[in-house]
Amino acid sequence: MNAKLKKITAATMILMTSLVLASCGGHSSSSKNYTTTGSGSGNYQGVIQGGRYKTSKARGINVSQNDNQYNLKSFENGLTQVSKRVFSPKNYIFQEGQYLNSDTIENWLGRKTKDNPAGLNPAEGKKSDPNPIYVQQIEEQDYMENSGNSMKLRGMTIGIGINSEYNYKKKTDGPSYTKKISDAEVKRQGEIAAAKVLKRVRKKAGVGNVPIVIALYKQAPDDSLVGGSFYAYSKNSGSTISSWHKLNYKTVVLPKASGTTSSTGSASQTDSDSFSNFKSQIQSFFPNLSGVTAQAQYNNGQLDGMHITVTTQFYSQSEITSFTQYIARAANKYLPNGIPIDIRIQSDSEMQAIVYRDSGSDTFRTHILTSY
Amino acid sequence: MNAKLKKITAATMILMTSLVLASCGGHSSSSKNYTTTGSGSGNYQGVIQGGRYKTSKARGINVSQNDNQYNLKSFENGLTQVSKRVFSPKNYIFQEGQYLNSDTIENWLGRKTKDNPAGLNPAEGKKSDPNPIYVQQIEEQDYMENSGNSMKLRGMTIGIGINSEYNYKKKTDGPSYTKKISDAEVKRQGEIAAAKVLKRVRKKAGVGNVPIVIALYKQAPDDSLVGGSFYAYSKNSGSTISSWHKLNYKTVVLPKASGTTSSTGSASQTDSDSFSNFKSQIQSFFPNLSGVTAQAQYNNGQLDGMHITVTTQFYSQSEITSFTQYIARAANKYLPNGIPIDIRIQSDSEMQAIVYRDSGSDTFRTHILTSY
Repeated sequence: MNAKLKKITAATMILMTSLVLASCGGHSSSSKNYTTTGSGSGNYQGVIQGGRYKTSKARGINVSQNDNQYNLKSFENGLTQVSKRVFSPKNYIFQEGQYLNSDTIENWLGRKTKDNPAGLNPAEGKKSDPNPIYVQQIEEQDYMENSGNSMKLRGMTIGIGINSEYNYKKKTDGPSYTKKISDAEVKRQGEIAAAKVLKRVRKKAGVGNVPIVIALYKQAPDDSLVGGSFYAYSKNSGSTISSWHKLNYKTVVLPKASGTTSSTGSASQTDSDSFSNFKSQIQSFFPNLSGVTAQAQYNNGQLDGMHITVTTQFYSQSEITSFTQYIARAANKYLPNGIPIDIRIQSDSEMQAIVYRDSGSDTFRTHILTSY
Repeated sequence: MNAKLKKITAATMILMTSLVLASCGGHSSSSKNYTTTGSGSGNYQGVIQGGRYKTSKARGINVSQNDNQYNLKSFENGLTQVSKRVFSPKNYIFQEGQYLNSDTIENWLGRKTKDNPAGLNPAEGKKSDPNPIYVQQIEEQDYMENSGNSMKLRGMTIGIGINSEYNYKKKTDGPSYTKKISDAEVKRQGEIAAAKVLKRVRKKAGVGNVPIVIALYKQAPDDSLVGGSFYAYSKNSGSTISSWHKLNYKTVVLPKASGTTSSTGSASQTDSDSFSNFKSQIQSFFPNLSGVTAQAQYNNGQLDGMHITVTTQFYSQSEITSFTQYIARAANKYLPNGIPIDIRIQSDSEMQAIVYRDSGSDTFRTHILTSY
């Protein structure tokens, strides 16, 4: 084996690991009613029952809980990230929540009233100065293991999203008011809700004594261009919260918009500069000005990943091809190393190409969306 | 080097080749005014002049020439495919057409009149029975080589799109009529136009005696869900067409729609069955019915590639992740081997994930479009 080949082999082992995993994932067997979806690198396999994906008992309810869809996506993706800390995708199979159904979650998200004693949110109080809705969304994830011809529940994660502001009207059709909810209050309300949720979930038939992870998420404001983030989780074997582990995620939008950094944090100067260089490189390349924006996530102060969107009008397929190649080069040159990044290239809100680097890879891949 | 590692290495050499190519492509040099975009595997590098992409002199005109945007995309992509037969991406650099400007092409695409003697299309004739517009679109591509501090033109490809039907009205605001144009007539009209175009292009200042490839394309009808295809090309060193090489591309839509196969051809039964199996597998997976359609291209009767679109409503990020993993598995199991395929997974017309296999690869890659 010569030196060059060795180098190539070393460089691709990470890549290969994911390919091999992908091709090994999910052995289907006709004798079992349960199979799995197969897994990509580092992702969970999902449960298929009788040939169909086993959907959540509370399916659809989360969509209606968020005026800002970024909060929904980041909540769901973040919840899976938290789960991976406790339930490794190597050992556990993912199942959509089966123990909390739509009615249950709807009641819990409501205000506490005579008709709805299970409501986690306080009664409205004075119309002119109402109590905030604190608990905005709840989602259950189940973690399973194969057990003979069936799947057994081995763990559960429940995410709870707490609002960082409350929008209300004193009169129907009147002006809108906003109450900011402090970080201390978000923390306090999250812990109150968590304690109640844990007690209730532990009592559900079939849950038994599996570890229940409760993860707390701070919602971004409705006008944010990025979702909120998880700030704490606890892993519990009983019916009371054992202890909280702090999470230090921050999500930011680039380029920095003046005056909108407070609730989501801001990027490091280095990262912000890298992005600016990338952006100006892209914008000088084509005669038309193109929009270049990014969402970035920090974990413990370190940049963790980016989603970049480039919007430009294209006049031909060859322009799209050339621009995509150029962006891959510019990304490699200007954007931070060692983190997953994707760049969506679109015109007229239709995606034309994608450039991305997976976690653990040092190469940007490109795929152009063409047509016959 | 053990057997397993050898197998892995062998399996990845194709992959690696493209990665290495990608990272080597496009050496930029600050001392030159010209650089290139860098190339993906098997793609051309494009010309950058003074930091900006060198756009076509006829930029934008092609967009307005097609009521059916599939014809535009497939014309432009197909033209590059034809060029690759003559001007290898290893030796030539791509430049957007610089010799035919918007006015020239607009005039050529018009009808021949006193005001527009250069029109390639016949005069209208009787309003009640007009002569068809045969020549629908024209595009120029230049193929360059580095030459000291500049780029030299070494070849040119001109694509000409000929209509397979002509839509017209006898009276303004009256009903629409359609004249079918036979394949024999498409061929005849293409060759007439090609002879004129070659003569005119050869005379343009700077073109000299570089080889000029003329490629003829049959436009799909306006209501087609797939574009047309190139059916002939000639490579010419002089001012008259030397000889025509037949091309045998066909583009089809799957699943087969009843009664709409005539103008674009139909898929082989085997390929159609493969796709049906894939489709029914996907559709049984989720409780919601999902739309699954494909464009397929044949070259000399062999399936050459597919673009598949899967549309489903998703209720959570974990559903998207699971569905994407499942589709990659189903694609691997049911879809034909050895050809490039991409699968766009979308809901509410927004793309949620992409699954694709590049030409020369045997692995489907997945990328999920998430958000922070």
